Amino acid sequence: MSAIARRILLAGLLGLAFAGTVAQSASAQSDPLPSWNDGATKASILDFVARVTTQGGPFFVPVEQRIATFDNDGTLWIEQPMYVQLAFALDRVKALAPMHPEWKTKQPFAAVLDGDLKALAASGEKGLVELFAATHAGMTTAEFEKIVTDWLATARDPRFKRPYTELVYQPMLELLVYLRANGFKTFITSGGGIEFMRPWTERIYGIPPEQVIGSSIKTRFEMRDAVPVLFRLPDINFIDDKAGKPVGINEHIGRRPIAAFGNSDGDLEMLQWATLGASGARFGLIVHHTDAEREYAYDRKSHVGKLDVALDAAAVNKWTVVDMKKDWKRIFTFE
Amino acid sequence: MSAIARRILLAGLLGLAFAGTVAQSASAQSDPLPSWNDGATKASILDFVARVTTQGGPFFVPVEQRIATFDNDGTLWIEQPMYVQLAFALDRVKALAPMHPEWKTKQPFAAVLDGDLKALAASGEKGLVELFAATHAGMTTAEFEKIVTDWLATARDPRFKRPYTELVYQPMLELLVYLRANGFKTFITSGGGIEFMRPWTERIYGIPPEQVIGSSIKTRFEMRDAVPVLFRLPDINFIDDKAGKPVGINEHIGRRPIAAFGNSDGDLEMLQWATLGASGARFGLIVHHTDAEREYAYDRKSHVGKLDVALDAAAVNKWTVVDMKKDWKRIFTFE
Repeated sequence: MSAIARRILLAGLLGLAFAGTVAQSASAQSDPLPSWNDGATKASILDFVARVTTQGGPFFVPVEQRIATFDNDGTLWIEQPMYVQLAFALDRVKALAPMHPEWKTKQPFAAVLDGDLKALAASGEKGLVELFAATHAGMTTAEFEKIVTDWLATARDPRFKRPYTELVYQPMLELLVYLRANGFKTFITSGGGIEFMRPWTERIYGIPPEQVIGSSIKTRFEMRDAVPVLFRLPDINFIDDKAGKPVGINEHIGRRPIAAFGNSDGDLEMLQWATLGASGARFGLIVHHTDAEREYAYDRKSHVGKLDVALDAAAVNKWTVVDMKKDWKRIFTFE
Repeated sequence: MSAIARRILLAGLLGLAFAGTVAQSASAQSDPLPSWNDGATKASILDFVARVTTQGGPFFVPVEQRIATFDNDGTLWIEQPMYVQLAFALDRVKALAPMHPEWKTKQPFAAVLDGDLKALAASGEKGLVELFAATHAGMTTAEFEKIVTDWLATARDPRFKRPYTELVYQPMLELLVYLRANGFKTFITSGGGIEFMRPWTERIYGIPPEQVIGSSIKTRFEMRDAVPVLFRLPDINFIDDKAGKPVGINEHIGRRPIAAFGNSDGDLEMLQWATLGASGARFGLIVHHTDAEREYAYDRKSHVGKLDVALDAAAVNKWTVVDMKKDWKRIFTFE
C-alpha cells in the first residue's frame, strides 16, 4: 500500500482549514455547462466536443472510441483537508475499537483513537498499512459495500458539515452529463479504492461500477454453506496512481481515452496516455484549486493533491487548466 | 503462468481430429434464436429473459443490473484441437526463429520448430512460460495488437481450413444479440489472454474491449521520445480461470452477473458466483460439446475444456446444459 499509503498519510497530517461558503445561482437554459463561466476554459471544452462529434469533419471520432477518464479525489469531489477514504478509515478504527481493547496501547490505532495525527505519522507506512488492513480487509465484498454505504450516509465533512457525496463539483457533474449526451463513455480512474467508490458513483455521478477503475486489494473466492462470497484480503492488488493509471486504463478499458481529466501530479501519466503521440483531437484538463474562499487553494507545495510537474506539463502540452475561482460560477450542488 | 500454462500445455498435446462439416440452413423470421432447435434448452433461455424483462413482474431486473458473462474458448469459439492462443504462440515461435538461431537447440523452442509436441510437453511448465514470454511479451501493447490482428487474418484452423474468427458458434452469436436487445450488457470472461481477444471481439461478437475480461501479463508505462507506450512484461498479472473468474468479474464489473455461460470446469466458480445465494431470477448455462461430426465431442476426460464437476453441479443447481448435437440446428456461421 506504499504509494497510496504515503499520500493518504501525508493528507492526514494537514490541519483542517475553515472558510465560509458562497452561494451562487447558476444555469442558462440552453447552456450545457451553466456552472462554467464563459471564457477560454469553457470554450476549449465545447470546441473539443464539437470537433469529435462533427460527422464528416476532420476530427470526427466514432461513438465507441469516445472514452473519457476522470480522476476522483480533487477532480470530481473534495480531497481536503484529507482524502475522504482516510476519514473513513479513521472513523472505522473508532467504530471497531470496542472489539479491540489492545488498540488503546497499540500503534497506529492508539494514535487514531487519541486523535493524534502526529503520532499516526510517526507510525509510518507500516502503520498505515496496518490501519488499512484493519479497516478495509477481513470481510466480504458485500459486507464492505454496506459498511461504506452506511458510513457515507452519516459522515459529515468537517468544514461544510455535509455528506461527502454532496461535496462533488457541480461544474464537473455538468461536464459528465454533457459528454455522455455527446456519446462519450465516462470512466473514473482514481488512486482511491475501487470498492470504496463503487457503492455510490452510479447514484452521484451516473457512472456505473463497471466504469470505475481504482486501487484494489486482493480478494479470494469462497463457497460458504453453498453461498459464494469474495473475501477481502489484506494484500495490495493494484495501485491506480501515477504510472499505474495508464496501466489500469488499459486493463479495464483496453483502448486509449481521447479525453482525460485530473487535478494533481498523480494524473500526469493518465493525461499523457490520453493526449500524446496519438492522431486526432485529444483533450486534457486539469482542475486547479484556486479558490480558498469557496473551496481550497493549493498546488505545488500541497501534501495532498500536489500539482507541480503536471501543471508545467499542461502548458507544454496545451492541456486546459481550470482556474476554479475564475472559471466556476458555482462549485457545489448545494450552493 | 502456471494454471493457464498447464491447460494450454495439455491442450497442445492432443492430436488433431478430423471430421466432415455439415451445412445446415437456419433462421425463422421472428425467432430471435433461429439456430437453436425448439426444446427445453431454448425455452429456458426465452423464459429467463422474459422473466427479468417483464416490468412489474416478480423477477424484473433493472437494465443496469442485466449483466451477462461469457467464457470464450469452447463457449463462443472453438477450442479443439488446441486453444487458438497456443496455435498463435507456436506460429510466433516459427516466425521469430530466424532472429533466434539458438532456438534450434534450445527447449522448448526446438520442440516447437520440430513440431514435436511430446518434447514440448517434456519441457514442462517452465518451458511453456518461456514460450509465452518469448511470444507475448517484450513489445508494446499496440505492437502486440497488430501482431494478433495480422496473425488472425492469415492463420487457418487445421480441420475446417478457415480463419479462427469464423469458427465462432452461430447460436451463441444469436444469444449475444438477443440478450443485448433485451438490455443486457454482455461481457467475456476468459482464461485466455485479454489482449489476445480485444483486437477482434468487437467486430466478431459485438463486445467492446472494455467488456472483455481475461488473463493478463504486467505492463509498464513509458514515455519514448514524448510518445507514451505500455510495454508488455514477461510477468503474470492475473489468471482469469476457475476461482479467478469471480475475482476478475468483481474487479472489472463490480456487480454480480445475473447470467453466466461457460463450457468447462474452468467456468464453475463463475456460474456459482452468478447464480447461487442471490435473490431473483438467475441463469447458468453450460455448452456441452456432444457433436463429433459437426464439431467435437468431449467432456469428463478431455485434456482441453474438461467438463466434469461443472456438469455435476449443473444438475444440482438447475443450470441449463446445451446438448450441442441436439440443441443446435447450426453450429458455425458459414454452414
